[in-house]
Amino acid sequence: MEDSKETLADAFDRGGAAAVQAYLESLEIDGVRRELDRLSGEARQTLIAALPPEVAGDLLEDLAEAQAIEILEDFEASEAAPIISALPEDIGADFLREMGSKESDAILDQIATEAPEEEAELRERVAYDDETAGALMESRFVAFDERCTVEEVLTDLSERAEEYSDRDVQYVYVTGGNGVLVGVLPLRTLVLTRRAHQVASIMVKAPVSVNVGDDLEALEDVFESAGYLGLPVLDDAGMLRGVVLRAAVEEARADHYADDYLKSAGILGGEELRSLPLATRSRRRLAWLAPNIILNLAAASVISMFEDTLQAVIALAVFLPIVSDMSGCAGNQAVAVSIRELALGLVRPTDFIRVIWKEISVGLINGFVLGCILGCIAWLWKGSLALGLVIAGALMINSVISVLIGGLVPLLLKRFKADPALASGPILTTCTDVCGFFLVLGLASTVIDKLPQ
Amino acid sequence: MEDSKETLADAFDRGGAAAVQAYLESLEIDGVRRELDRLSGEARQTLIAALPPEVAGDLLEDLAEAQAIEILEDFEASEAAPIISALPEDIGADFLREMGSKESDAILDQIATEAPEEEAELRERVAYDDETAGALMESRFVAFDERCTVEEVLTDLSERAEEYSDRDVQYVYVTGGNGVLVGVLPLRTLVLTRRAHQVASIMVKAPVSVNVGDDLEALEDVFESAGYLGLPVLDDAGMLRGVVLRAAVEEARADHYADDYLKSAGILGGEELRSLPLATRSRRRLAWLAPNIILNLAAASVISMFEDTLQAVIALAVFLPIVSDMSGCAGNQAVAVSIRELALGLVRPTDFIRVIWKEISVGLINGFVLGCILGCIAWLWKGSLALGLVIAGALMINSVISVLIGGLVPLLLKRFKADPALASGPILTTCTDVCGFFLVLGLASTVIDKLPQ
Repeated sequence: MEDSKETLADAFDRGGAAAVQAYLESLEIDGVRRELDRLSGEARQTLIAALPPEVAGDLLEDLAEAQAIEILEDFEASEAAPIISALPEDIGADFLREMGSKESDAILDQIATEAPEEEAELRERVAYDDETAGALMESRFVAFDERCTVEEVLTDLSERAEEYSDRDVQYVYVTGGNGVLVGVLPLRTLVLTRRAHQVASIMVKAPVSVNVGDDLEALEDVFESAGYLGLPVLDDAGMLRGVVLRAAVEEARADHYADDYLKSAGILGGEELRSLPLATRSRRRLAWLAPNIILNLAAASVISMFEDTLQAVIALAVFLPIVSDMSGCAGNQAVAVSIRELALGLVRPTDFIRVIWKEISVGLINGFVLGCILGCIAWLWKGSLALGLVIAGALMINSVISVLIGGLVPLLLKRFKADPALASGPILTTCTDVCGFFLVLGLASTVIDKLPQ
Repeated sequence: MEDSKETLADAFDRGGAAAVQAYLESLEIDGVRRELDRLSGEARQTLIAALPPEVAGDLLEDLAEAQAIEILEDFEASEAAPIISALPEDIGADFLREMGSKESDAILDQIATEAPEEEAELRERVAYDDETAGALMESRFVAFDERCTVEEVLTDLSERAEEYSDRDVQYVYVTGGNGVLVGVLPLRTLVLTRRAHQVASIMVKAPVSVNVGDDLEALEDVFESAGYLGLPVLDDAGMLRGVVLRAAVEEARADHYADDYLKSAGILGGEELRSLPLATRSRRRLAWLAPNIILNLAAASVISMFEDTLQAVIALAVFLPIVSDMSGCAGNQAVAVSIRELALGLVRPTDFIRVIWKEISVGLINGFVLGCILGCIAWLWKGSLALGLVIAGALMINSVISVLIGGLVPLLLKRFKADPALASGPILTTCTDVCGFFLVLGLASTVIDKLPQ
């Protein structure tokens, strides 16, 4: 079993930083995460503070991002700064961007006292919006001036082989005198060319590139339409600032979807790990739950309006939650399809007519089927055809309303720059509850003397 | 605006396949998807059948996978086979794997008549499970026998430059006489070595590799623990079968999360596009909704057991759905956190105690807060302290139950190899409804003479 008897703390006591390093290397990545997750906050911070910054950095890279940020935030700036400095710039900047701005500022100020240049570069990186090319790019790329010869490039590559050994150099970028990207040179071409040539004469001119501000959607499009493994990232002046890898874009996409799922389930403010302090976990979850009480009350007040009807025909009480739940489920399916079609670019936020048409048709069929099933059950169970008809009618109509709302709300939210994954669910549920309660009780009121009292 | 007046069909009428190709190249990838999405099934099939297979293949690669598969399934096997043959093997195999088995068999049989070797290779690829290294790998890699010299490798690379030009060759793989992988040679090393050397003397020996059967989680772990952009994929005999790229693994992870989200919202049987036939969309959605009626009925039958109580204290009817909805929301948060922690490897399917402990504490706090809020509202609204206490108590207890169930169900499902994203929601909702109704009405029954009648 992977549960060996020795723990991280044991290893530290036995042999200090070196033993910890060896111990961590013997674990699978999940094991490392779990071990640190299980330590108390204090033990964890003591342990990491005792490691050399490079080792601590390697360790943080292995952790889930939320774990790493929690650890960095818990340190004094003077302890966190060397670890951030030891990390590759893109990862250090990622952590700083996700941290509280007070903590990240303190760390950057600390770095500035020792390495003002590094601080300036990090600040520039941190300033890029999340999920843009600027945030996702690596700043470690290999670029040469266009006047270099192949010989010079190969010599330099060979001399700096050590420095390049931790990454996969596939392209050499070629810049003009002013740092503007003018071409790209696949390593393959370099290998197969006479060494006296100037790189300018053999490079691919006007290569495909992206802008530092390009967002995830734009990056996906570029990578989807061609098989590049990496693309140069330029600033507005055309200067080469970094390289964004296909893998980094796909990773950001995966994280984005994972995050959408969390948000749709009401986990906000970044991902929750159960190792976070109880107060934080509780507060974040309440921030979502408390407003939901208001929405629920608004919906349930419809029931209050019809208390007389309900009291007269108490059998309705059984079917109230079923009708609202079932249409909620139907509407949720429409929400998911709209969010997916938006992501795939199959529907635009303005394509209302198409969504209305496509959802009404499904809503009518499924509402009819579900309405008939539930109506028959109500009829047979409570022995009242009129009750069956009320329930069937309410579920049919409410299903159509729900899939319409469910299909349209994500488009509307997207159009007004709100987050469909976050807000669609509560809006939908409130609407389907209001309409469901209203339909069941309203229809029942109109035929109340035919219903079992 | 990107809505130009000309449509795909116009382009086809004007200039046939060549005009369609030019037209498609003028569109962004989303535009291509949308255009094809909007065509009637017949028009779409006619158009694609008129394109040369290579162009049709390029087009299908640009589409969302569900779109491409729909198109291929709608063709006769004799029409689909040349398109599959024209695609890169990994993509062709992906499409075949996702198709109905009748359709994919017919296409493979068709390919067998013209190219039996290609059919055998495709069948082998299709047989790998979804989301394994075998399914995700590219079979186009560059391998040389260990006895080759650097000179021979470079010459071959140069001669076949054309053939390699559509992909990024970063590594050369080195195999023993029997096709077993013995080493890897970074292109960089190749460039910087004397040409007379044998590759065996300069290669990285015993390189990191994965097995064709390794699943997504295993692949993620390997790529997370080191910075490789691609890894060799071996079969059980150690033979080199392909190369899996980091980008392919990240892409599969993104698709997996997107799929999880769809399933959690009740979209099963692959992603639904609104261009699918109405009957298909309706049937797939009903397959999820119909069983939900049963679960809902089971829950609502609790209300039926307490009809007398409810009739006596009709004010309870307002709070029944609020209590069950609110605890459902609280439980859903716990589901999301568990699914996320499972994905990050922070919790194992056997870690019940930890989850119970962590969820009970949050559940108690949040249940207390929400219970107090809702209890006060009930008290003030209906003017009955007893009613307020019943509602507060029910919501407190039910919140704790819900977060416990929500936290544990994903672990249990994972442990029994079921899909947490799919089944957690319905199980949780049913449980929280049953308990919520039972608590509100049960507590009310015990103090019924104190409640407003």
